[in-house]
Amino acid sequence: MSLNRRLVLARRPSGLPDLTTFRRDDRPVPRPAEGEILVRNVYVPVDPGMRPVLSDVRIGVDEFEPIALGALVGYMTAGQVVESRDPRFAPGDWVTDRLMWQDFAVTSGRTARKLDAQALPPTASLGILGVPGLSAWSGLHCLADPKPGETVVVTSAAGTVGSIAGQIARNLGCRVVGVAGGEAKCRYVREQLALDVAIDRHAVPDLGAALRDACPQGVDILFDNVGNAMVDAILPAMRRGGRIVICGQTADYHLAPAERPGIRNTNCFVTRRLTMRGLFVHDHAAEYPRALEQLTRWTLGGRLRLEETIIEGFDQLPGAFARLFTGETIGRTLVRIDRDRA
Amino acid sequence: MSLNRRLVLARRPSGLPDLTTFRRDDRPVPRPAEGEILVRNVYVPVDPGMRPVLSDVRIGVDEFEPIALGALVGYMTAGQVVESRDPRFAPGDWVTDRLMWQDFAVTSGRTARKLDAQALPPTASLGILGVPGLSAWSGLHCLADPKPGETVVVTSAAGTVGSIAGQIARNLGCRVVGVAGGEAKCRYVREQLALDVAIDRHAVPDLGAALRDACPQGVDILFDNVGNAMVDAILPAMRRGGRIVICGQTADYHLAPAERPGIRNTNCFVTRRLTMRGLFVHDHAAEYPRALEQLTRWTLGGRLRLEETIIEGFDQLPGAFARLFTGETIGRTLVRIDRDRA
Repeated sequence: MSLNRRLVLARRPSGLPDLTTFRRDDRPVPRPAEGEILVRNVYVPVDPGMRPVLSDVRIGVDEFEPIALGALVGYMTAGQVVESRDPRFAPGDWVTDRLMWQDFAVTSGRTARKLDAQALPPTASLGILGVPGLSAWSGLHCLADPKPGETVVVTSAAGTVGSIAGQIARNLGCRVVGVAGGEAKCRYVREQLALDVAIDRHAVPDLGAALRDACPQGVDILFDNVGNAMVDAILPAMRRGGRIVICGQTADYHLAPAERPGIRNTNCFVTRRLTMRGLFVHDHAAEYPRALEQLTRWTLGGRLRLEETIIEGFDQLPGAFARLFTGETIGRTLVRIDRDRA
Repeated sequence: MSLNRRLVLARRPSGLPDLTTFRRDDRPVPRPAEGEILVRNVYVPVDPGMRPVLSDVRIGVDEFEPIALGALVGYMTAGQVVESRDPRFAPGDWVTDRLMWQDFAVTSGRTARKLDAQALPPTASLGILGVPGLSAWSGLHCLADPKPGETVVVTSAAGTVGSIAGQIARNLGCRVVGVAGGEAKCRYVREQLALDVAIDRHAVPDLGAALRDACPQGVDILFDNVGNAMVDAILPAMRRGGRIVICGQTADYHLAPAERPGIRNTNCFVTRRLTMRGLFVHDHAAEYPRALEQLTRWTLGGRLRLEETIIEGFDQLPGAFARLFTGETIGRTLVRIDRDRA
């Protein structure tokens, strides 16, 4: 256990990320100081939200500063404590924290969150009870305020955040239409997530028309994870007083601004009195206890689920990340990295 | 006084409206029934907001249903009562109501608003104290909530609504940047409206860069009267928590959706936590008394003014309307129609 496998940014992707985007930069395993814990990562998810900070675009907002070339990449993970110098943690405890794409990480007992692995699998902390679940919950509750009977459209409805957002809206008594690409995803949306309607955007010639057919009363809330083309197509189907939440823009992250599709149907903002807001999940941290209580209760009660694909092997991380952008994944993709060490 | 000159929609403009868009369709002067009043129009403003309903685009929202071919056009006017069958009105009283582009109109005493022509000129009811002023006030107060010290950008700052919005924001203690096209308009914005900065969008190579220079702290509120190109250029200059109000889209009204500029910089919605809302002024009618009280007080106190261009002659209406879209007008354009009758 002397070597710590790490993945760092090798070169900034121009367009889609690929296997050359990252490179290994192994280092010795770090040692915890007093008050710290050493964690061995087990589950490392891949997340499209990492894509923007791989580009060298400085926008003057701390949370979106580009990752430096050669810097460790990654975000939240789940692992087990190996060595603890914090009395609140013991070896074997499951924790989640921002421990990045590496085998071992030292972290403070203040930021690590201990997981009750008896109640729910540790991977839940990276999905429904993690940043994706909190994003779905906050985007709906804090920015869109869904009411029972309203019509909610979720794009990338088979994706991680989309899967959760669709079910939350359904659990709140909304009529939910999921938009996804391909029949397999639509089947998942209908059968596993139990949304009211699934629209295969690859199979319909005109998404806007399909939406208007599926939502004769109009769309009250659009929860978008895809980007401008989707918002533009759905705008004419919005209902008076509708709310649009921009949560993710997976289709646009790799495009320079001039290359992105444009939103043109903005006249609908006036005629339908629409509101569009961008979500940054951690702005809503004060609501997390309430969110986690509700998300946990729904999960234990079988009213919230998330398909997980677990890939074995540390070196699968770059490929798994790249596949997020080619439309192949359903639900959450995690890489299990603790069983392939030499 | 037997003939009532009227202008009706002759053909739907493809692109900019012109002199062939409207035609005369004179009729006998109408007679008021019990409870009604007959008004002779004096001041008839031209307004870019009439452009959308000249197109045959049905969007299923009552207030934006297309005007029928052959139907009377127009909107709010100011005139004098000629004959009254409502005890609250007497001949000679100045009133404002939705009396359209015609010499004479019969209206109900319930919708007509009597004007105190001693206190303010009747044209004030069509500008600062009319729909333009209420739009500026409601867009700022109800959709953007400006706070003293915030930076507000107003586009089409020399236009009717823009002129008023800029001064309201200034009066509320905001730093106000006006964007206008051409040096004459910018001089008006600086000298007559006393905004902090005027940017001539024809003279700067990159509006976004000019905005960032003029607003080193970023833009808290964008009050847009122009359309997508303007919003897209200004998005990267927005500050965290910024609000965008879509009030008018004068540059886009005559373009089919596919021809309009697109808004591409939507990543700023997430990184800056922006909110964009469309304004429909009459949604905020409950606030009108408060708005009118403040707007009247500021006008009487010399803290709110609006350049008026008064053109003589009924048949000038189509041309005056067309010129709204070619960037030639400053402030409010009104046509005085009572002195050129044969």
